[in-house]
Amino acid sequence: MAKGLPKRSEDYSQWYNELVKKADLAEHSSVRGCMVIKPYGFSIWEKMQAALDKMFKDTGHSNAYFPLFVPKNLFEAEEKNAEGFAKECAVVTHYRLKNDPDNKGKLIVDPEAKLEEELVVRPTSEAVIWSTYKNWIQSYRDLPLLINQWANVVRWEMRTRLFLRTAEFLWQEGHTAHSSKAEAVAETKQMLEVYADFAERFMALPVVKGVKSESERFAGAEDTYCIEALMQDGKALQAGTSHFLGQNFAKAFDVKFAGKDGKEEYVWGTSWGVSTRLMGALIMAHSDDEGLVIPPKLAPIQTVIVPIFKGEEQLNQISEVAQKLKTELQADDISVKFDDRDTSSPGWKFAEYELKGVPVRVAIGPRDLENGTVEIARRDTKEKKVIPLSEAAQHIKNLMTEIQENIYKRALDFRTDNTTEVDSYAEFKKVLDEKAGFVMAHWDGTPETEEKIKEETKATIRCIPLDFKEEEGKCIYSGNPSKGKVMFARAY
Amino acid sequence: MAKGLPKRSEDYSQWYNELVKKADLAEHSSVRGCMVIKPYGFSIWEKMQAALDKMFKDTGHSNAYFPLFVPKNLFEAEEKNAEGFAKECAVVTHYRLKNDPDNKGKLIVDPEAKLEEELVVRPTSEAVIWSTYKNWIQSYRDLPLLINQWANVVRWEMRTRLFLRTAEFLWQEGHTAHSSKAEAVAETKQMLEVYADFAERFMALPVVKGVKSESERFAGAEDTYCIEALMQDGKALQAGTSHFLGQNFAKAFDVKFAGKDGKEEYVWGTSWGVSTRLMGALIMAHSDDEGLVIPPKLAPIQTVIVPIFKGEEQLNQISEVAQKLKTELQADDISVKFDDRDTSSPGWKFAEYELKGVPVRVAIGPRDLENGTVEIARRDTKEKKVIPLSEAAQHIKNLMTEIQENIYKRALDFRTDNTTEVDSYAEFKKVLDEKAGFVMAHWDGTPETEEKIKEETKATIRCIPLDFKEEEGKCIYSGNPSKGKVMFARAY
Repeated sequence: MAKGLPKRSEDYSQWYNELVKKADLAEHSSVRGCMVIKPYGFSIWEKMQAALDKMFKDTGHSNAYFPLFVPKNLFEAEEKNAEGFAKECAVVTHYRLKNDPDNKGKLIVDPEAKLEEELVVRPTSEAVIWSTYKNWIQSYRDLPLLINQWANVVRWEMRTRLFLRTAEFLWQEGHTAHSSKAEAVAETKQMLEVYADFAERFMALPVVKGVKSESERFAGAEDTYCIEALMQDGKALQAGTSHFLGQNFAKAFDVKFAGKDGKEEYVWGTSWGVSTRLMGALIMAHSDDEGLVIPPKLAPIQTVIVPIFKGEEQLNQISEVAQKLKTELQADDISVKFDDRDTSSPGWKFAEYELKGVPVRVAIGPRDLENGTVEIARRDTKEKKVIPLSEAAQHIKNLMTEIQENIYKRALDFRTDNTTEVDSYAEFKKVLDEKAGFVMAHWDGTPETEEKIKEETKATIRCIPLDFKEEEGKCIYSGNPSKGKVMFARAY
Repeated sequence: MAKGLPKRSEDYSQWYNELVKKADLAEHSSVRGCMVIKPYGFSIWEKMQAALDKMFKDTGHSNAYFPLFVPKNLFEAEEKNAEGFAKECAVVTHYRLKNDPDNKGKLIVDPEAKLEEELVVRPTSEAVIWSTYKNWIQSYRDLPLLINQWANVVRWEMRTRLFLRTAEFLWQEGHTAHSSKAEAVAETKQMLEVYADFAERFMALPVVKGVKSESERFAGAEDTYCIEALMQDGKALQAGTSHFLGQNFAKAFDVKFAGKDGKEEYVWGTSWGVSTRLMGALIMAHSDDEGLVIPPKLAPIQTVIVPIFKGEEQLNQISEVAQKLKTELQADDISVKFDDRDTSSPGWKFAEYELKGVPVRVAIGPRDLENGTVEIARRDTKEKKVIPLSEAAQHIKNLMTEIQENIYKRALDFRTDNTTEVDSYAEFKKVLDEKAGFVMAHWDGTPETEEKIKEETKATIRCIPLDFKEEEGKCIYSGNPSKGKVMFARAY
């Protein structure tokens, strides 16, 4: 139990909250519902950003930047989208404060600086972007338009949790425009694959790819694809979504293009996004009672070297060895920290880097100097090994791959063990209560049944998996015919 | 005159506005005062960000993220800062819209969702950050705290211009905390040097480093250092600022640390920032009547290859040569575009890449194939050369350095030619009206004189240069004693 971290088995929720704070990832701010992402947390997010950004560019997308504010009349234009976000949006009504005449040193909103039209702080940018695309798109030659934006968005959430649900969060939002439905659908699916690939290769997080049921669809979309991950407490977490928008936004904002034949048609659209919520997924999927477990590909520090010494002379001798190892590792693009501070003990440092999830820890003491060895500890398995110094760099290099794979495999095994097929509602409820996880069950395809099940069990349809197996059956709730099992879970 | 671009000599202001739009850098949005940064413009900004971010990290800073919103009571805490920004801040007063009962499909602000405390959209983040630092800093061991944030900020400007002055803009803001005044001052100056170095090495923009007079100081700072650049119309542009905050914010937010001796003291602070305004500086400093001139280090496309062909067979032959050259250049980390579209003519492409400021253009036609040559054109000097294909890659590689240096030298020469020392107010006004540029003149050191000069001439003190020469003299306005000449200019 690191620094008073609660055990996962005792209080998973509290374990998460404490871990986020103690590992210096993020904290609540003095602004209701908004978080501060601390440098260590942000450096993980930067690695995620860099990897995703490269994947977006490799698939032909460019970054751009659109305004933070959405004038109310634009916000209203796509009715479903407006309805979906109206209940949780921050609204700017004034553009000036003035001195409070009754209260020296205090400010009040200046009633004379009231905006004629209120501005909504973007909860998502379809409205602003499609109103811009109207001017950018005239002909088929202007298509496809493949744009991404890294930005902050605001959704006024009442119950917030660090990374998982905050009023302001950071994300990327892709917004593309196409000349045909087929091309837009292909883009939607391509970006889902990009997200899944990123989650699995970088976050070591296995995900189920699927499509949302109607009631879980993005407001304004024709179809919402998603990747769903399983957390260690058996709850699901939606890790990314990719929406096929049909011509909804094109119609709302009158975005048409002239085809090769000169005929005008509405443009087809997609949007897709992942957010700092991924940080929550990363933490909850892999970490343990000692602290974070970060896959090497996203770890800000991949290897830490801790000297065990008494006095300056020993430290100097160890430093020489450590610096040489550090240089060797850096040549292999492994990020290394040599922590030679004499203000804290090796034991304290061990606990600290465990808490911070550093994948590999190297300890070098006087006996190692004598024997020409180092002790190497893996964060994921907690395994320790004393190995010859001459083999250390290669060993650590191999560990980067091994640990990445092991973390993935462990998460995959966990998911396999916690995915259950059921054939009755009784079984469904039993599994949810005793084990949770993903529960595959027949559903009659109606929003009514979905809603009832949600009310009674708090489980929702996470998705209809892309590898959906056609299979005749009966809905576990209504007994009506079903064409195959869909994936339920309680979710974050 | 590219695509109807006005000439600089005829209408510099209109030339700038049109160039920003025609070169696909940015445009006004449907949101008053906010801009859309288009993909091409954003890709230049991304290069600036990458270079600056590396420089910040190399000087020991980490990135983090703080909330977009500042609760009014925090905003008020540092009185001067609050006063400075209260007049131009966007205020969130409500957190929900609802259906307009009188107007189907329309939304109105829900009066029941009024915030108890209004939120200011950050115009700058000192208040939010120092209220956070209070919890992060207890002891000298927590210092220095060296943090940077890339973010959007909002200042409600009434007259806006793309990149130069917009209601929302993108920037980075460094916020550091130190245990001594000397260290904080050193940090302030270090970051000024980083900015100057960036401007000169990457933007090819010579800058004057200096300190602001009291009336031009950042609200809440003890001293504001700045870099000032000269635009082609003889007006100055402040390209970056670095503020020594003294203990002002520490006192406003009660941020104290215990020193080695256990004694408590207020923390010393700095903040420093550059913004998308740099895009304006880059454009206005170097570009010409044909379009953008971008220094190679910031050019999204460094070399474009345009084939001159009739029919597919010729194109195929040229493509083979072009692809080989492209590969060679890419191996040297030069970004290359081969524009083999058959939908536009070579002439159209030449004009397009001139407009877009691509540093080097390679043209390959049938005669080149025969002779084993290519034609290479520099964007900066418009010089064209036919050279052997075998020397092309090395030649272009050299051009990257040469062009970067030439653009810098040209801007430096321009600045030298347009920096004038004057000794009387009559001369001062004459220079401003006939030539503009930087005008060095004696000043008595009082805000009153500064204000009068500004009223009468629209010129402001840009800075007291760091290389200020001590020299007894008389203020050009008041005739009172002066210790040396300071730098005046009309400014953006």
